[in-house]
Amino acid sequence: MPRYKLLIEYDGRPFSGWQRQDNAPSVMGLIEESLFKFTHERVTLFGAGRTDSGVHATGQVAHMDLERDWHSLKLNEALNFFLKETGVAILKVWKVTDAFDSRFEAVKRYYRYRICNRRAPLTFEIGRAWQYSYAIDVERMQAGADLLVGHYDFTTFRATACQAKSPWRTMEKLTISREGEWVYMDAMARSFLHNQIRSFVGSLVEVGSGRKPVEWISEILEARDRRACGPVAPPDGLYLTQVDYRQDIDYVIPEEPWQGHGHK
Amino acid sequence: MPRYKLLIEYDGRPFSGWQRQDNAPSVMGLIEESLFKFTHERVTLFGAGRTDSGVHATGQVAHMDLERDWHSLKLNEALNFFLKETGVAILKVWKVTDAFDSRFEAVKRYYRYRICNRRAPLTFEIGRAWQYSYAIDVERMQAGADLLVGHYDFTTFRATACQAKSPWRTMEKLTISREGEWVYMDAMARSFLHNQIRSFVGSLVEVGSGRKPVEWISEILEARDRRACGPVAPPDGLYLTQVDYRQDIDYVIPEEPWQGHGHK
Repeated sequence: MPRYKLLIEYDGRPFSGWQRQDNAPSVMGLIEESLFKFTHERVTLFGAGRTDSGVHATGQVAHMDLERDWHSLKLNEALNFFLKETGVAILKVWKVTDAFDSRFEAVKRYYRYRICNRRAPLTFEIGRAWQYSYAIDVERMQAGADLLVGHYDFTTFRATACQAKSPWRTMEKLTISREGEWVYMDAMARSFLHNQIRSFVGSLVEVGSGRKPVEWISEILEARDRRACGPVAPPDGLYLTQVDYRQDIDYVIPEEPWQGHGHK
Repeated sequence: MPRYKLLIEYDGRPFSGWQRQDNAPSVMGLIEESLFKFTHERVTLFGAGRTDSGVHATGQVAHMDLERDWHSLKLNEALNFFLKETGVAILKVWKVTDAFDSRFEAVKRYYRYRICNRRAPLTFEIGRAWQYSYAIDVERMQAGADLLVGHYDFTTFRATACQAKSPWRTMEKLTISREGEWVYMDAMARSFLHNQIRSFVGSLVEVGSGRKPVEWISEILEARDRRACGPVAPPDGLYLTQVDYRQDIDYVIPEEPWQGHGHK
């Protein structure tokens, strides 16, 4: 059975999250439906990150196995045809070997959290960012973020519902930056705990706004207690932006050029 | 009667345009309603640019006269309170002299047109950009744009419904640029004709895509005939970004610091 890797972008607003659910719209379920319309195959899509309700992606990765062999470009065009106007788009499709697994072969995941730091309410960005009215000191926020980089027990920063076996994770990068009224937090790690980034953001904004001292971040990290965490930031501002795989394995299977209509 | 200048941002998707209408939602009508909720005054808002249905603004300017004197910051906060979740926000309010007129005192208007040049359908940007699937050569498009800069009879590029007395306008700047999959056209002039920018974009993309030669732009300009124009680009990608007023007149009336809650 040929395996395909998909690069996926979606606006998370209308969805109850990535994961298929019985009575709620999900990104995974919608793509599986679109695939069925085209291939008449019932398949399961495996995603690299199970984004929550209202969380977005500009670089989600998934894989699936099909009965029939399709050219990756044909599959890409067909899926996008059925996904039009849904807020979900397939940016690229590759035919890959069975060694590729979107979830277990991922070596790095990247998330961006977007804060719109202004008094005026959001317009274009309703549901796509966290609007925060009070002044944020980005240097203070970065000083707090620096205390979270490394290998730690992140119990404080994970949802009580988190199903990961271990609360230990290695935070490789946590960068705060500002562009005009926008404040970004960029996070990179092999994997994250449930609600970890939104918990980081909520706590770091407490520091950036001056309500808590920088050292408070170390205190709550060391507490290893969910109740010590600051308020959890809303899903609106969270984006899965990139997933990296091993560079030493070539998962992609070369294909003949596609004879379909003019592809850029 | 105190006069106020407003800087306004709006997502044009839900609106039939800037101008108040009897049976359709308009940006002007919505702000007037919000003002009524707060001041109980029925006033008319005068905008610098009458954006069409589905056209957006990041820098619309308007003015209005009120019976009662309000602090500009108080007025700003109150309007935004009533505008929350509507896609319209007041970015700033100034108290100004009667010499200020948003429309007739404007000396420069700036518009940006956003094209998303990729095959995948839009997700976050549905209704906020023109998705164009085929390759665009930005240098060719700029060469065509250069032919439109200057003082011309732009009959070819204005809607037949355009109510301006003269088809003559002076295009001061018309710049095409690319950032990744995004192509922008930035236009600047004292004033524009109805549908002029969307007519420019539609015709210039004919050149950028290679379907028409660069010189075709001069031909259709010289034709002074609406039927010679290329397809008109959709409103989705158009943004009124800035309006400039005379630098030599100080319209703003200084105010005491506002004693309201913590304003950044």
